[in-house]
Amino acid sequence: MDAVEYTPTFDQYAWTFGGAEPALRVRPGTAMRLWTEDAYSGRIRQSTDLPSACVDINFINPQTGPFYVEGAEPGDTLVLHFVDLEPARDWGVSTTIPFFGGLTGTDRTALLQEPLPEVTWVYHLDAAKRSLTFEAARSDFRLDLPLEPMLGTVGVAPGGREARSSLVPERFGGNMDTPEMRAGATCYLGVNVPGALFSVGDGHYRQGEGEACGTAVEGAMNVTLIVDLIKGGAPVWPRIEHDDAIIAVGSSRPLEDAWRIAQVEMVQWLGQLYGLDRMDAYQLLSQTAKAPIANVVDTNYSSVVKIPKGLLPASAAYDGIHRHLRESAAALRA
Amino acid sequence: MDAVEYTPTFDQYAWTFGGAEPALRVRPGTAMRLWTEDAYSGRIRQSTDLPSACVDINFINPQTGPFYVEGAEPGDTLVLHFVDLEPARDWGVSTTIPFFGGLTGTDRTALLQEPLPEVTWVYHLDAAKRSLTFEAARSDFRLDLPLEPMLGTVGVAPGGREARSSLVPERFGGNMDTPEMRAGATCYLGVNVPGALFSVGDGHYRQGEGEACGTAVEGAMNVTLIVDLIKGGAPVWPRIEHDDAIIAVGSSRPLEDAWRIAQVEMVQWLGQLYGLDRMDAYQLLSQTAKAPIANVVDTNYSSVVKIPKGLLPASAAYDGIHRHLRESAAALRA
Amino acid sequence: MDAVEYTPTFDQYAWTFGGAEPALRVRPGTAMRLWTEDAYSGRIRQSTDLPSACVDINFINPQTGPFYVEGAEPGDTLVLHFVDLEPARDWGVSTTIPFFGGLTGTDRTALLQEPLPEVTWVYHLDAAKRSLTFEAARSDFRLDLPLEPMLGTVGVAPGGREARSSLVPERFGGNMDTPEMRAGATCYLGVNVPGALFSVGDGHYRQGEGEACGTAVEGAMNVTLIVDLIKGGAPVWPRIEHDDAIIAVGSSRPLEDAWRIAQVEMVQWLGQLYGLDRMDAYQLLSQTAKAPIANVVDTNYSSVVKIPKGLLPASAAYDGIHRHLRESAAALRA
Amino acid sequence: MDAVEYTPTFDQYAWTFGGAEPALRVRPGTAMRLWTEDAYSGRIRQSTDLPSACVDINFINPQTGPFYVEGAEPGDTLVLHFVDLEPARDWGVSTTIPFFGGLTGTDRTALLQEPLPEVTWVYHLDAAKRSLTFEAARSDFRLDLPLEPMLGTVGVAPGGREARSSLVPERFGGNMDTPEMRAGATCYLGVNVPGALFSVGDGHYRQGEGEACGTAVEGAMNVTLIVDLIKGGAPVWPRIEHDDAIIAVGSSRPLEDAWRIAQVEMVQWLGQLYGLDRMDAYQLLSQTAKAPIANVVDTNYSSVVKIPKGLLPASAAYDGIHRHLRESAAALRA
Repeated sequence: MDAVEYTPTFDQYAWTFGGAEPALRVRPGTAMRLWTEDAYSGRIRQSTDLPSACVDINFINPQTGPFYVEGAEPGDTLVLHFVDLEPARDWGVSTTIPFFGGLTGTDRTALLQEPLPEVTWVYHLDAAKRSLTFEAARSDFRLDLPLEPMLGTVGVAPGGREARSSLVPERFGGNMDTPEMRAGATCYLGVNVPGALFSVGDGHYRQGEGEACGTAVEGAMNVTLIVDLIKGGAPVWPRIEHDDAIIAVGSSRPLEDAWRIAQVEMVQWLGQLYGLDRMDAYQLLSQTAKAPIANVVDTNYSSVVKIPKGLLPASAAYDGIHRHLRESAAALRA
Repeated sequence: MDAVEYTPTFDQYAWTFGGAEPALRVRPGTAMRLWTEDAYSGRIRQSTDLPSACVDINFINPQTGPFYVEGAEPGDTLVLHFVDLEPARDWGVSTTIPFFGGLTGTDRTALLQEPLPEVTWVYHLDAAKRSLTFEAARSDFRLDLPLEPMLGTVGVAPGGREARSSLVPERFGGNMDTPEMRAGATCYLGVNVPGALFSVGDGHYRQGEGEACGTAVEGAMNVTLIVDLIKGGAPVWPRIEHDDAIIAVGSSRPLEDAWRIAQVEMVQWLGQLYGLDRMDAYQLLSQTAKAPIANVVDTNYSSVVKIPKGLLPASAAYDGIHRHLRESAAALRA
Repeated sequence: MDAVEYTPTFDQYAWTFGGAEPALRVRPGTAMRLWTEDAYSGRIRQSTDLPSACVDINFINPQTGPFYVEGAEPGDTLVLHFVDLEPARDWGVSTTIPFFGGLTGTDRTALLQEPLPEVTWVYHLDAAKRSLTFEAARSDFRLDLPLEPMLGTVGVAPGGREARSSLVPERFGGNMDTPEMRAGATCYLGVNVPGALFSVGDGHYRQGEGEACGTAVEGAMNVTLIVDLIKGGAPVWPRIEHDDAIIAVGSSRPLEDAWRIAQVEMVQWLGQLYGLDRMDAYQLLSQTAKAPIANVVDTNYSSVVKIPKGLLPASAAYDGIHRHLRESAAALRA
Repeated sequence: MDAVEYTPTFDQYAWTFGGAEPALRVRPGTAMRLWTEDAYSGRIRQSTDLPSACVDINFINPQTGPFYVEGAEPGDTLVLHFVDLEPARDWGVSTTIPFFGGLTGTDRTALLQEPLPEVTWVYHLDAAKRSLTFEAARSDFRLDLPLEPMLGTVGVAPGGREARSSLVPERFGGNMDTPEMRAGATCYLGVNVPGALFSVGDGHYRQGEGEACGTAVEGAMNVTLIVDLIKGGAPVWPRIEHDDAIIAVGSSRPLEDAWRIAQVEMVQWLGQLYGLDRMDAYQLLSQTAKAPIANVVDTNYSSVVKIPKGLLPASAAYDGIHRHLRESAAALRA
């Protein structure tokens, strides 16, 4: 299985979902090896680099893409299977940013208090140990944490003629910032415009759920994925499948609305998988759901619902395409 | 190690945190074997029993207690270690209740729509397999789910002269409805009134995170716990310790405020454990937190933050009292 | 018409709704002249008095009452008509309080930022001009504002065996902090316990809608009111009637839920007044409502819905009791 | 003073803020007479026309514009003074729409309940009496209400390369749905892109605050306005000036965040007008603000803060441009 390779130059990045010209056209079934820049556009490289000095607010979350998928029409289901996410650098970086993050006032939770201090933490990656070293900036503390690569941003063009910043998580996916978007995951997104126009970016070498301070261990990433397409069947909100779980992601504010969205999406998915009446699906969900928060810092908050496959009867969502893509991925790696 | 046994009669239940006379006085270090009735006061026993017909709204979430802990003063830390949670019946029950739950309008999210159907699901417990059978009410579907007992409600009397319904999760603990409150957990609660006046109840044979429909698999429970006391050091919000994680629980509305509360509590705990500056603790939290939602259905929503001990340097929270209580528990079981 | 007079000593104040013994028993139809202390228990008297130094958090919002209304039973409607609200001192005071208020992080919107500065502003009252002088504390600015007395806190004992702090606005009324609670207003509250057990307090010499900084121009108040009782007919949430408007107040979080509560209460009231179908009442509300926010700073946020009587057909809510009480009030003043 | 006249054909409407080509270029100081279609694109004309059958979701809130203002650069302040808003038809219409509105579950407050009934109410306009007749659809009730024309939607192109649906209220203005946007109002909007690219639409013949059911009395409108430009001085969020009040509008979710945004914007404005320290401005705001809710139904909720000029010292915001435009408007009408 061959793979299309694509490494954008700076002026080839997209900064929105929708509103950007396609970088490439690909056919369903195509494997792609993509390079993604980090959320800071690579401008934060050492602990003395502070976002307010080094980062232009108009150049955050550069997107690799968008890619036009041949044959994709509104109402179809775009399928993205993540084969590998490999750090493209031996360091990642996290920062606090004035009036951005979960435990500070923001432009939305608008308050009169002074901002928190701006701090940059650089994490060094030990490729052999697959670990990242956290060095405290204002205390005497050092800790190795496991490398757990994920993509913050995976999305398609929105409908309704909109173009949305790559900072936005929404119905179209986007900046959901969930650790569930990792190698081995298959993501299902409803197509809103011809060609779907998907893009990826915002690699995280690791991230806690909620992304409390507003940034993960941000890092450039080599992304290997397989694109596929299901005619029709568009989910209303993003769905993800792992070998061991089915997942839905809701993004809105307040956080309870993001949670409600994901829960209703999962009620519908359970109904589709098992022929369950809505009330029975609601009950099954109530006793089996995991409900990790993804982010409480972006323009919408994201809430994940996740049901372990081990709790559910065997089923083959989307005709078993996840299993099929896992096999293709294995072939690709071989 | 001896254990105080206590099985209340119906008129001995408490229905509030605060405002009830102590059922017993106990010394720190005491083991207790307590019987707790289910959230419905045992009135829902078969699938034709509907809450609107069978349950008096004034008799929900009966509490076993409160217990006066000798020597407990405001500012102290009450320590409750859960040794065993064993179902006291061979069936549990879950229902939908009109205008109650996460995916319906409620008395708070007040809407004009008609209520959802009222449905009762009875789960049969197979003690040998430690499983519960879900039988769909309106579809042809049946599924065994693992028994995973937990307590919905663990709390002390609030401060400020208040008495709060046993449906409330708050700073004093209460109806947090988190699956983290299981056998093996140690719960730390700030003491607000002399004697702490703690109580427990609302056993769940299993529950998904979020408790979407508003009720878990509710069931009477035999609870074995050890009470202990630390002078001073009261956490602002409830903390929980497992063998493999440290946890904080925030309860408020909207859900992002519950999340913020738990996160700030954990920033403080990390600072206490490792001498970390607040910004460094914020960063460490951001990259290591698990953030499961506990409930989005009670009078306050509850959000959990959980850091795996495996990610953190070894430490002994509260002078290692959790490990000590685990050993006492083992002795108690022997 | 005679009036019962009552001026509590410090140890006669109540600090909760529910959980306090009645100060007096009164019959429906009784006029009362009550003295209410300010929210700070009178401890802030000059601009150098700061809340963190002068005020004990356990002694905020002293309540005058509670009063046991003869014959009041759960399900009845307590009627309080405010005849006069007259400042009892020639100064009032407002402060910022660390981590309290609408434009700062709080114990609920828990953040890591430093608190805002603590400032006390003393307003001098010119009784002849009925004005208050605002003197800026940190700028060169001085401004006379009209005296517009109101009561922050009017409530009955809650149901469900609860006792709630006098800082709480809820279904039982309480600390709603709406400028609509002024002389000439009639307040309707559902009775939850025998005797209703109402209390009043937290006088404001004036307050903006929202009470942004967390405190109004707080001041001791001489309150003249008439108590009345309607058997049955308890509104779910507090209602208020003026000569020129009907009003409902919802209190919850997030603020949209407080808004929804008040809107639904008004849909019901419109239905009762005009025999309207629920959808028609919803439509009428949509085109006629005023929706001033009351507070975004208390333990619940409060949202007001207000329909000018001038827009509506003539009607006599609660059999015209407001008009009757206006006449009694005029007689009382004469 | 001459006025540019512009009546778009259907295919000349814009459906987004940003992302549309300018319809005209105008110089600051230009008067314009614009025709705006109603929110339903004119497709609902009688009580049997229901939105789900007659309205295409992609053709809601048609915008007249956008207009390119010569010389407008990012950071400038666009000034729109509304001279006249006159109904262009002798009827207006309001509807409920499934899963849209304030007292129903929505695509965001995602619930499992059935939708509310879909109802259309046609209001007849009596031009002489300047009144609208409400005829209840499901009850025997009829009521004349005053005509009070306003514009739901006034906005410029957003920054950050975004294009947003004309259903969105945001920092750029847009679908704020506040009755404050009436004849006599001057609206100040920060410019984000060269030419500002403003548009207007969504006329309401009257609307209650909050727009509870999701739609006002929607109607085509003849809009007369004067465009002006101030170099620099862009407000962060929309500001409005009347003869008797200064106003700011915040739009976000949850509603308390919309409120916070507007409050902080007003603290800044008060500081600019009177040289007030931030804490003093916070205090002045707290005792003088009116806080009507604008909408709780759109993609963002909108909260208004309004300070009566009568409470404040005389001042001339933006060098008195509002008074100047009022005079120009009078000349235009003459």
